[in-house]
Amino acid sequence: MTMADYKSILERERAAYQPKLPSVLWGPVQAVEGEATQSVADQEKIKGLFPSTYGMPVLAFEKSTRRKESVEPFNVGVILSGGQAPGGHNVICGLFDALKALHPDCRLYGFLMGPSGLVDHDYKELTKDIIDRYRNTGGFDMIGSGRTKLEKVEQFEKGLEIIHELNIRGLVIIGGDDSNTNAAMLAEYYKAKGEPVQVVGCPKTIDGDLKNAMIEISFGFDTATKVYGELIGNIERDCNSSRKYWHFIKLMGRSASHIALECALQTRPNYCIISEEVEARNMTLGDVADEITEVVISRAEKGMNFGTVLVPEGLIEFIPTMKDLMAELNQMLIDYPHIPNLVEMEQNDFVRAHLSEKNREIYDLLPDDVARQLSSERDAHGNVQMSQIETEQLLSRMVGHRLEPMIKDHTFPGKFKTQHHFLGYEGRCAFPSNFDADYCYALGYNAVQLINCGATGYMSSIRNLSSPSSEWLAGGVPITMMMNIERRNGEDKPVIRKSLVDLYGRPFQKFAAKRGEWAIDTCFVYPGPVQFFGPSELCDQVNRTLYYELGGE
Amino acid sequence: MTMADYKSILERERAAYQPKLPSVLWGPVQAVEGEATQSVADQEKIKGLFPSTYGMPVLAFEKSTRRKESVEPFNVGVILSGGQAPGGHNVICGLFDALKALHPDCRLYGFLMGPSGLVDHDYKELTKDIIDRYRNTGGFDMIGSGRTKLEKVEQFEKGLEIIHELNIRGLVIIGGDDSNTNAAMLAEYYKAKGEPVQVVGCPKTIDGDLKNAMIEISFGFDTATKVYGELIGNIERDCNSSRKYWHFIKLMGRSASHIALECALQTRPNYCIISEEVEARNMTLGDVADEITEVVISRAEKGMNFGTVLVPEGLIEFIPTMKDLMAELNQMLIDYPHIPNLVEMEQNDFVRAHLSEKNREIYDLLPDDVARQLSSERDAHGNVQMSQIETEQLLSRMVGHRLEPMIKDHTFPGKFKTQHHFLGYEGRCAFPSNFDADYCYALGYNAVQLINCGATGYMSSIRNLSSPSSEWLAGGVPITMMMNIERRNGEDKPVIRKSLVDLYGRPFQKFAAKRGEWAIDTCFVYPGPVQFFGPSELCDQVNRTLYYELGGE
Repeated sequence: MTMADYKSILERERAAYQPKLPSVLWGPVQAVEGEATQSVADQEKIKGLFPSTYGMPVLAFEKSTRRKESVEPFNVGVILSGGQAPGGHNVICGLFDALKALHPDCRLYGFLMGPSGLVDHDYKELTKDIIDRYRNTGGFDMIGSGRTKLEKVEQFEKGLEIIHELNIRGLVIIGGDDSNTNAAMLAEYYKAKGEPVQVVGCPKTIDGDLKNAMIEISFGFDTATKVYGELIGNIERDCNSSRKYWHFIKLMGRSASHIALECALQTRPNYCIISEEVEARNMTLGDVADEITEVVISRAEKGMNFGTVLVPEGLIEFIPTMKDLMAELNQMLIDYPHIPNLVEMEQNDFVRAHLSEKNREIYDLLPDDVARQLSSERDAHGNVQMSQIETEQLLSRMVGHRLEPMIKDHTFPGKFKTQHHFLGYEGRCAFPSNFDADYCYALGYNAVQLINCGATGYMSSIRNLSSPSSEWLAGGVPITMMMNIERRNGEDKPVIRKSLVDLYGRPFQKFAAKRGEWAIDTCFVYPGPVQFFGPSELCDQVNRTLYYELGGE
Repeated sequence: MTMADYKSILERERAAYQPKLPSVLWGPVQAVEGEATQSVADQEKIKGLFPSTYGMPVLAFEKSTRRKESVEPFNVGVILSGGQAPGGHNVICGLFDALKALHPDCRLYGFLMGPSGLVDHDYKELTKDIIDRYRNTGGFDMIGSGRTKLEKVEQFEKGLEIIHELNIRGLVIIGGDDSNTNAAMLAEYYKAKGEPVQVVGCPKTIDGDLKNAMIEISFGFDTATKVYGELIGNIERDCNSSRKYWHFIKLMGRSASHIALECALQTRPNYCIISEEVEARNMTLGDVADEITEVVISRAEKGMNFGTVLVPEGLIEFIPTMKDLMAELNQMLIDYPHIPNLVEMEQNDFVRAHLSEKNREIYDLLPDDVARQLSSERDAHGNVQMSQIETEQLLSRMVGHRLEPMIKDHTFPGKFKTQHHFLGYEGRCAFPSNFDADYCYALGYNAVQLINCGATGYMSSIRNLSSPSSEWLAGGVPITMMMNIERRNGEDKPVIRKSLVDLYGRPFQKFAAKRGEWAIDTCFVYPGPVQFFGPSELCDQVNRTLYYELGGE
């Protein structure tokens, strides 16, 4: 064993876990077709863009009445796309086991470092040795991941070369909304061209924003929020022991506030910002700071100069005034791509000179460093880099400013000292929870059934997830069904509609009903670390969001 | 059940865990006295300061040959002092169970919010209801903690009032080196005065710097480093999946680098700074940045533009040139206490004007914000606030500067993008590991035996910790034995000698033997979250530091 191969005790013990598969997938399946589908909006435009794959039926798998079918061996390629999420390896393990169950001569190829592996023909065959080393582990390090976007014909054609060379019948793309959009484009392109290769997507993202009527949850959300819940609970317990700090905790997640909401339901902090609500109530950043300040004062009056505030990473873009500013900045960065290369002062001057008057006013209100962060580099999706903006620091400073007059005239009955945290990378590659280990394995196992029944342009769909895994439902959903047209990078594009926090949905309603109490009293809950070996109530619990969405009380 | 009483599933399940007690403590014990002891240094001075409690023998407990003794009921008070560490509640539970085992009429009083609870007569009786709610939980929230230092006669006298009022025979102070020093002072004062109350300390600190021949480890270190190990492992896995960032991870810990070393042994990062080595090798901050830069270049040459660097929080004070500067700054803050109130520019000017020429040169070399951090507020111990200095950011910037010329002339074969983390509050209040749950319970249980046998000025000592807990040894160590004289806050004071990382000790040697390989290859290990219910090999493992120190291979 080389040093690089050394495994932790947990990794060794966890390797033996056998993910629980839905009983419908225990043997041969047959696909039952539902009605023809439509995209969630912009039907004509989507149909025009996906003439060969639009309108396909939802597929539901049932146990086949035939005994074991005889299948010709076939090959599958798999790509991990975008940010890491716990469970990705188990999707691949599910693919492998399903392929080998169909025929021992089936082969699985992993394209390396994301979609670029397909384009650059960088791959390796995933053999039993490799697969067994990664069962139930976190991370995407088995084959690596990357953010190259598959959207150009040249890329599709380059991909086709290696697909032919390796005789690949099915390509599985494991990714978030953008990657699955690209999977749909690839499927459409190959089908329109008469190429027999099929493309199937799997819903991955810790952000939890890839879900809809047919996709109950994306994988990784469950584990990541449990790790963040563990850490927030630990910070809350610290906070409640020393009783002297307000902890402002920013949580990763590009735009939706699902992670923050889930963590709030797990840990009951004193305040949790839900960006979607901030937008719906048309609040400014100052309004948010005002609300937090009220909570700080109320607790100080009861002698409690401590608390926790959860801040979703994407907050800024949901604040209508900030959103206008950012839309203009995004466009400015397209029109003047040299801006990030300017030195600080020049950058500021240039941006101010080119902003509309309305947005210049807001820009001028921001602290210098925040303004600079907003006009710096964009992320791979062409958007201003939200995570660069230290909103947790910004908000706590704003609360401090609001308390200053009260502190000066001695009407503030307490103290306001702060600590800041940003939780993100700590959770994206954690060992998958039992839920994610099972769900991912089923998604992969199911993807092979979709390929075996000839589907392309589908997303692997496992549902009924709040029931025991044996009762989970398996099938496929046409990706075009989830699409609409949105403006991206200055252009109208077909994309999978992001799922934002539904303010009328049960998770938010549960939170809204209790948050007043959580703000003033100290109701902290300490979930502790994810457990793999204890009682099922503990180890197999699902996240609160999914639980409430599927009707739990 | 009120909302505030809601417990997580883990908290409920974990309440049932029965900490494993050393077999010697399973029934009545008798104390065996060792030889008279001496302080580790400055014997005459320490003896002069502790005339009544100096030179006492080490005590070892053996099973008593008598059957159950008949004990008059007595009362004990307990204080949690200083920063939180996992397991504090179990010390208190051990005290409670030991008291009740001696006599059901024994009572336990908890002084609230740290030592100030004793001085201000702020306390509550800890009844079975309260104790049962906190078994095997993290945090100090059962009675709170605080940083008031017990060192003045008026405080000792105020304490005596409530000690008399509650008829307290034994006072247990759970704390780090400073708090145990104060326990010794209190014991000395009361004994010299002829007061019958006894004072016993328990060794607590996640920093791991309170240990010596008789105290193998302080509690909390095991759990906190396992939480940090979990998170570092997760970050490493992320790093190894996306392969595009160097993660600079700062780890809490006031001065010693035990936490960083332990985390390195657990997770095998590419570079780990050990402050004690930096000092021994007389390195500057620039030298450290040079070494990291070499590792970055070596990995870039192999196509690996990613890695992890562990940075101990206390680094700056171990760098000889920085240490001189800081000593002068510390003295300046005593001489001119108004400095922190000056505005930035004035502060800088004032500090520069008053620094010696040699130190002004170094001060001028620092980036502005770091220089300012060094001259801002002191912590409760009168020291410059180490945690204010973002050394992880400072170092990564310095590495970036060193790569700049190579990037400009295209001789650097890669990229250098960074992410920064500070792990601290995430681990101080975690659910205690089995080791800490057992060790703390034994420390508390043992402290009651020390009181019962008349000891004062002792620290509760449980040893042989790498063996199964049934074989652990129990006894007491005179606190004066661990003391020497050090300069604090501008004065010579008797203090417990801090244990720094021993560069000739086995933990460091194990690290030093492997780090070259870990730097260039990717040897990351992913420990995962602390487990409570799995196989013993997993759940009862002790930290690497203790394991190697006690002879493990």
